Amino acid sequence: MVENTEGAGAAPDSSTVREVRISPLLGLPALQPGDDLAGLLAKSIERAGGLSVGDVLVVAQKVVSKAEGRLARATSQADLEALIRAEARRVRRRRDDLFIVETHHGFVCATAGIDHSNTPDAETVILLPVNPDASAAGLSAHLGTHFGIEAPPVIIADSFGRAWRTGTVDIAIGVAGMEPLIDLRGTLDWAGRELESTQVAVADELAAAAHLVMGKADGVPAALVRGAAVEHGDGSATELVMPPERDLFP
Amino acid sequence: MVENTEGAGAAPDSSTVREVRISPLLGLPALQPGDDLAGLLAKSIERAGGLSVGDVLVVAQKVVSKAEGRLARATSQADLEALIRAEARRVRRRRDDLFIVETHHGFVCATAGIDHSNTPDAETVILLPVNPDASAAGLSAHLGTHFGIEAPPVIIADSFGRAWRTGTVDIAIGVAGMEPLIDLRGTLDWAGRELESTQVAVADELAAAAHLVMGKADGVPAALVRGAAVEHGDGSATELVMPPERDLFP
Repeated sequence: MVENTEGAGAAPDSSTVREVRISPLLGLPALQPGDDLAGLLAKSIERAGGLSVGDVLVVAQKVVSKAEGRLARATSQADLEALIRAEARRVRRRRDDLFIVETHHGFVCATAGIDHSNTPDAETVILLPVNPDASAAGLSAHLGTHFGIEAPPVIIADSFGRAWRTGTVDIAIGVAGMEPLIDLRGTLDWAGRELESTQVAVADELAAAAHLVMGKADGVPAALVRGAAVEHGDGSATELVMPPERDLFP
Repeated sequence: MVENTEGAGAAPDSSTVREVRISPLLGLPALQPGDDLAGLLAKSIERAGGLSVGDVLVVAQKVVSKAEGRLARATSQADLEALIRAEARRVRRRRDDLFIVETHHGFVCATAGIDHSNTPDAETVILLPVNPDASAAGLSAHLGTHFGIEAPPVIIADSFGRAWRTGTVDIAIGVAGMEPLIDLRGTLDWAGRELESTQVAVADELAAAAHLVMGKADGVPAALVRGAAVEHGDGSATELVMPPERDLFP
């Protein structure tokens, strides 16, 4: 992940391996549909010392969805189930009230990513953004203009459960300004041999890292990750979705 | 994740939300079976400014396995397949040479976690530690004594693929000195309502965060995560394994 400027097989030293810092972005108000999220984030980033080249902005899905008006009403389990089915391309598994679905984006997650907590009131639920990559690209464009940086990396993160493991981790559901996967094919390991394994989902690792300062109950809706070695580019979170022909757990 | 000392529903401020820093630990030699990994890590931690209460040490599985002598020879695909089957409780899926297995620890992963890269020579492969929680506990005990801290949190991390998503992320296969899951049940969200979702796999998020400075080709075998809100305790990575009765993707 860290750029090795010393050539293949060289041991890293402190000049090539950087410390990574994760700073919570504070002071955003409770978002309302139509709010200028990019502008509010820009102010918060300014209070946190500004945006530098290489800084990655990670934004919680929930505030993006709120600003985009992705709210719905669910006053019963039947309402919720109808919303889940509308958000889903396919139900992958169901056990009682637990639905594991494939969303229209291709994400496999519980409840189609629909969220009950931190909503404006008890009958309002929050849906995933229609196109989280586009949401990330929009934020990147606005912040790039504001701070004079070309296409700064932006990740929209959400807490997902996983197959085979308990608990949730945050992952990237939207990406802009960076490559979400770092390809190690062709890289030499420290013994000088080509690495066999393939790709690191660095956007997911950044989302998980940012969540360390964004905990659910705390109302910290965004964080800056500074010092991570990201590859700038026009990648998207759709690259993180396993294509059907490689999916062994359909 | 961040302790909210302001009471339920209070907005966080800079006094309750901390920056998280991830520092690579450098200068470890290539490990040999029987090497004093805890002692070598202690020296590296001293060079990085020492260990403080709350710091989490994340160590790459590969160096733990090397120090513990978990090496084997595989000169052919048949050799490797025999090793995979010996390390597996059960093969979950197979496609050509790709095996997704459940290891004896309960982890579901490709190739039973057996690794080809960064090995001493081309015919040597590295197996997962027999008991990564015990490996983490041993490191925690040694480092606790060395630095005068009771049971500092230690995570053994490995890069795992995931169902439905491309690329690998680092996860916790061994945990000591902390609770791997933060339970949000009963926590109030910022609107003062009880959160519905359950648990955050903070040990996995810490492993993913640490990997941002530990990239595969770089020979950085460990990192310190400072400033994260961890719950000290005697948790283990076995808590991160989904119990069979809850596993919807057997």
